Amino acid sequence: MRAILAKALWLAAAGLVPLPVPAQNQPPQHPLEALRSQEYWATYDVLREAGKLDADTLFASVLLHNPPKDQVLAWKPGEPVFREAEVVLLRKGMTIEALVDLAGHKLESWKERPDVQAPLIDSEFHALEETMKKDPQVLAALRKRGITDLAPVSCAALPYGYFAVPELAGHRIMLGECADTHGVYLNWGRSIEGLLVEVDATEKKVLKVIDSGSVPVPQSEINFQDLEPAPREGTRPIALAQPMGPSFQVRNGEVRWQNWRFRFRLDPRLGAVVNLAGFEDDGRLRSVLYEGSLSELYVPYMDPAEGWATRVFIDAGEFYHGGVLKGLRPELDCPSTAAYFDGLAADEHGFPVLHARLACLFETYSGDPAWRHTERETWGSAARVLVLRTAAVIGNYDYVLDWRFERDGAIRVAVGATGIIETKGVAARDAAGGHGTQGAPDEFGHFVGANTVGVNHDHFFSFRLDVDVDGRNNSFLAMRLARRGLHNPSRRSIWAAEPFLAKTEKQAMMDIRLDRPAMWHFINPGVKGPLGYPTGYELMPGATAASLLDSDDGPQKVGAFSTHQLWVTPYRPDERFAAGVYPTASKGDDGLAVWTRADRPIEDTDIVAWYTLGFHHVPRAEDWPVMPVMWHEFVLRPFDFFQANPVLKLPATP
Amino acid sequence: MRAILAKALWLAAAGLVPLPVPAQNQPPQHPLEALRSQEYWATYDVLREAGKLDADTLFASVLLHNPPKDQVLAWKPGEPVFREAEVVLLRKGMTIEALVDLAGHKLESWKERPDVQAPLIDSEFHALEETMKKDPQVLAALRKRGITDLAPVSCAALPYGYFAVPELAGHRIMLGECADTHGVYLNWGRSIEGLLVEVDATEKKVLKVIDSGSVPVPQSEINFQDLEPAPREGTRPIALAQPMGPSFQVRNGEVRWQNWRFRFRLDPRLGAVVNLAGFEDDGRLRSVLYEGSLSELYVPYMDPAEGWATRVFIDAGEFYHGGVLKGLRPELDCPSTAAYFDGLAADEHGFPVLHARLACLFETYSGDPAWRHTERETWGSAARVLVLRTAAVIGNYDYVLDWRFERDGAIRVAVGATGIIETKGVAARDAAGGHGTQGAPDEFGHFVGANTVGVNHDHFFSFRLDVDVDGRNNSFLAMRLARRGLHNPSRRSIWAAEPFLAKTEKQAMMDIRLDRPAMWHFINPGVKGPLGYPTGYELMPGATAASLLDSDDGPQKVGAFSTHQLWVTPYRPDERFAAGVYPTASKGDDGLAVWTRADRPIEDTDIVAWYTLGFHHVPRAEDWPVMPVMWHEFVLRPFDFFQANPVLKLPATP
Repeated sequence: MRAILAKALWLAAAGLVPLPVPAQNQPPQHPLEALRSQEYWATYDVLREAGKLDADTLFASVLLHNPPKDQVLAWKPGEPVFREAEVVLLRKGMTIEALVDLAGHKLESWKERPDVQAPLIDSEFHALEETMKKDPQVLAALRKRGITDLAPVSCAALPYGYFAVPELAGHRIMLGECADTHGVYLNWGRSIEGLLVEVDATEKKVLKVIDSGSVPVPQSEINFQDLEPAPREGTRPIALAQPMGPSFQVRNGEVRWQNWRFRFRLDPRLGAVVNLAGFEDDGRLRSVLYEGSLSELYVPYMDPAEGWATRVFIDAGEFYHGGVLKGLRPELDCPSTAAYFDGLAADEHGFPVLHARLACLFETYSGDPAWRHTERETWGSAARVLVLRTAAVIGNYDYVLDWRFERDGAIRVAVGATGIIETKGVAARDAAGGHGTQGAPDEFGHFVGANTVGVNHDHFFSFRLDVDVDGRNNSFLAMRLARRGLHNPSRRSIWAAEPFLAKTEKQAMMDIRLDRPAMWHFINPGVKGPLGYPTGYELMPGATAASLLDSDDGPQKVGAFSTHQLWVTPYRPDERFAAGVYPTASKGDDGLAVWTRADRPIEDTDIVAWYTLGFHHVPRAEDWPVMPVMWHEFVLRPFDFFQANPVLKLPATP
Repeated sequence: MRAILAKALWLAAAGLVPLPVPAQNQPPQHPLEALRSQEYWATYDVLREAGKLDADTLFASVLLHNPPKDQVLAWKPGEPVFREAEVVLLRKGMTIEALVDLAGHKLESWKERPDVQAPLIDSEFHALEETMKKDPQVLAALRKRGITDLAPVSCAALPYGYFAVPELAGHRIMLGECADTHGVYLNWGRSIEGLLVEVDATEKKVLKVIDSGSVPVPQSEINFQDLEPAPREGTRPIALAQPMGPSFQVRNGEVRWQNWRFRFRLDPRLGAVVNLAGFEDDGRLRSVLYEGSLSELYVPYMDPAEGWATRVFIDAGEFYHGGVLKGLRPELDCPSTAAYFDGLAADEHGFPVLHARLACLFETYSGDPAWRHTERETWGSAARVLVLRTAAVIGNYDYVLDWRFERDGAIRVAVGATGIIETKGVAARDAAGGHGTQGAPDEFGHFVGANTVGVNHDHFFSFRLDVDVDGRNNSFLAMRLARRGLHNPSRRSIWAAEPFLAKTEKQAMMDIRLDRPAMWHFINPGVKGPLGYPTGYELMPGATAASLLDSDDGPQKVGAFSTHQLWVTPYRPDERFAAGVYPTASKGDDGLAVWTRADRPIEDTDIVAWYTLGFHHVPRAEDWPVMPVMWHEFVLRPFDFFQANPVLKLPATP
């Protein structure tokens, strides 16, 4: 990651904040920092010099190969940094994996993978639009619908998020749809319904045109840019003010804020990857989280119609080419006090592209107390939080992704979903005839505009949390709150917290049930606090959802991480992607549900927690044409990690 | 409610905000405002003139008797205001109800209630401490423990939250405990364990002293005032800045902010009561919520030991004498931009006491977007929220209670729990011998300090929400997300939202289950939006909990609202308290679970939603000696209420 923004530079110049990250032409300073510009070029050079590149070979992905955890933990500043790049290439439909030793400037491995599909590449996306818009059958279908002006027609072919059709065997097949953007700025909400185009992305040819009948293109209002030029009457400015600048520092890529210490890198596939998060406790740096990041997204739609039933997106793994993160807009996405961080991602030639403002870091204060108590008077101190924010934008949807560091030792991970819903054009203008009844046009969605049905769907996020509470060896302890009978004349029932130490992966698969609650603790069995308990962190879920699909259904086999709200695995460096490395057209033979079939031991060893955050989405009128941000979150909070409440050491004023 | 604070006055003087509320010697200006000072005095005078008061008659409660909804909705500014005060008196153990017509200056009703118990009165609390500290058996028990200096010993007798012991029949019995505050500022965490004192609060005498054996008084650190004098190193000031002042206005008790309009009053029992909340939509004021408030709290402890098994608090209904709300501390509880509101509550003589800063109102901004979307560029607007905040403090616990009005039409209700946990002194120093195992000193709690066990317990809050979506007649619609099988070669399962219109109360009792999700809609069947749907609001729960106690167990019969997460009842003016009007020593014969046994119709009529927000609490070291604030929340959000996303009309800058 390369830092910097005018403000950060200015602060640095003023001596307030050191310049976050050294320039790109210096060698990497830490094994966990993002690939630098010259490392992308080294990757390119190694492959080119090895004769592996030609005009038909495109870079689908260049990622930092996660360095071995042993090495990272043993590494000391100034020591040489061992770095590898893992590359996915696409050559005439063949997916190829390569591993490059960057310091050694050599190709370590090269493997053709006929069994998997690389993520979608930009040029495929654009070429397939051309292909579709030139196909006689497509043109005939458009003509049938009265569409003869092709210029405003946009067509998009998208990969399948699971092995949806038999044609996928050995072929790179995608399904295309078109929209008529005549009269509007953007192509959302203007779908040309009933026209599906199956294309071969390698051959760049149309295989099949499915015309199930014409539906007029919806004309509901989508001009979300139509803002009022002035604030609503009486709206006066509000801002976060930090006249002396922010309280955090970034030194050689390490963020220091209050007692928190952590690093982060901006990964093209995973987004923000937080590393080596620890808390300085009485002068001692204690580890909490070796690594935390979003691992995958799973977004199945819920309409059985052709073209909709197979609409299942594994958003990160299918669409991360060029980077899942998009630039943040100052004073919209982050307050005026924020510092911004740029980031690199490879294009299809393997060249690094610098993207502006992919992350921001800011302190926030909402006017809330961190703790308070009234006895005769009132005591307490004000809350403030350090937010590391990114935004992943995958087509229509925008996900604001926060890592929020709190002064009481908690890390709150939040997802704000916004952007534009996927809609379906229908012949009926509205729901006057029914209300989600069987056979009604809104049976599998909800009208959000005239002739416009927002289609029901789910969002599931898998967060990978490599917890290292006071060191690597941790255990997972479920504190089950169990009802007990009492032989007391006035009180016949009670609950008690019964610790259950999960010995294997299957014992640690957790489903939230209000009638059988459990607390999820990650403890270090080798480190006891002063009261005799192992030190620990608790993962507290917020409002969430579980998948309702059958577990042996095609899409659900790929998005199987959504079956449970928590999974715990032993640490394996290659287990990073909850729906597998290559979810595109996958049969579900990789990922969390597959790994855990082995039911490996997870007791007193290096373990990784996987939290599934989910929600069902039935769209509403207020979600159109753009959605207000809806936040969901979970918290990692200390449980017997500290000797007492750490916020007691805070000042009373904000 | 009477407003005012230096800042608000200053703003008013500067012409920015009109003075919120007229002075106390003016007659009430709105049927829903809080009782004014002269109304408390009128209540007192009417009762005194009627010969109802004597030296043995104490005021347990003086509340505004909720005016009939018909009258309020028909009332117009300038018309006379009909006002009644409902009074609970305590005379030698007898609870008496009185209703006073304030404008008419007459006693409307007077009723002795030998079957119920008035809430605890301050002077009882203090007198019983004296009684206990003079009792020879208590003194002997203290001496046995080596405690001979009585000055630092504090004893407190508390009522039972349910009919826990047979002695309660016809008597005002409480259970006392003592603490030795020698060496500390406060009496929490210093319990003299094993000593219980049953007292008759009317006779002011000790009935029984139960000495189950001596346990040394714990000496763990509780000096939470021991703040560091200066901020943690590197902490720089942060504030919310509104150089032109806040954007809300308060006119004759009505708050106007953006398109929101609402009133609120500060009620001694219910805290902040929000009334007549509506949204101005294209020049038309549309009703959303006629009334919303906290209705009750239920806090059962989970230790079967004598004195602990019966520790069940119905916090509002038992302890609201003098008012549940406590003063807010500026720049701790609310930001420097906040306006504050004072409030009145009767003392035991019926005299009004003015309490400072019982509520604050402020706009907040955290640096978050209200919506955003990136296409080639990024669009969006920043989020800001109007917060109405109070803090209820009931002994050890502090609850920060927020009504947050959002610009997208949502009302977010949040509870922040903080303060001090209840602890039990134990002979064992720590958990070295076990870890919550059977028979261990922490079997029903968790060590938080040396010899100090934080006892497990639950918190359940019942919020009463008199929804009036576009008018009084509403229905409750559960949108059940039901799994369906598909005959599709690649996709075999899907879910659909199936509307279920609840016809009666029992059909509307909702339990959250991740495997059988449902959305909770309050719709107006008589008002259709432009897409053919009834206009509506959705209640979205956040993380919550259900009671694990047996439904026929004594405490659970009183706190029975915790059995379901949602209840819907037909509007009845006298159904306001979810655990009944008199929860003290109750057999559970009043309240939500009792009313709904009739299974009354709730379709297309004036209905009230009751949301139960709950959480289980196993204390941790970090909760000692004070807890960091833990927030829980739920949201009322528009669902097909507006024609499109209302935040689109917001400016892009904060």
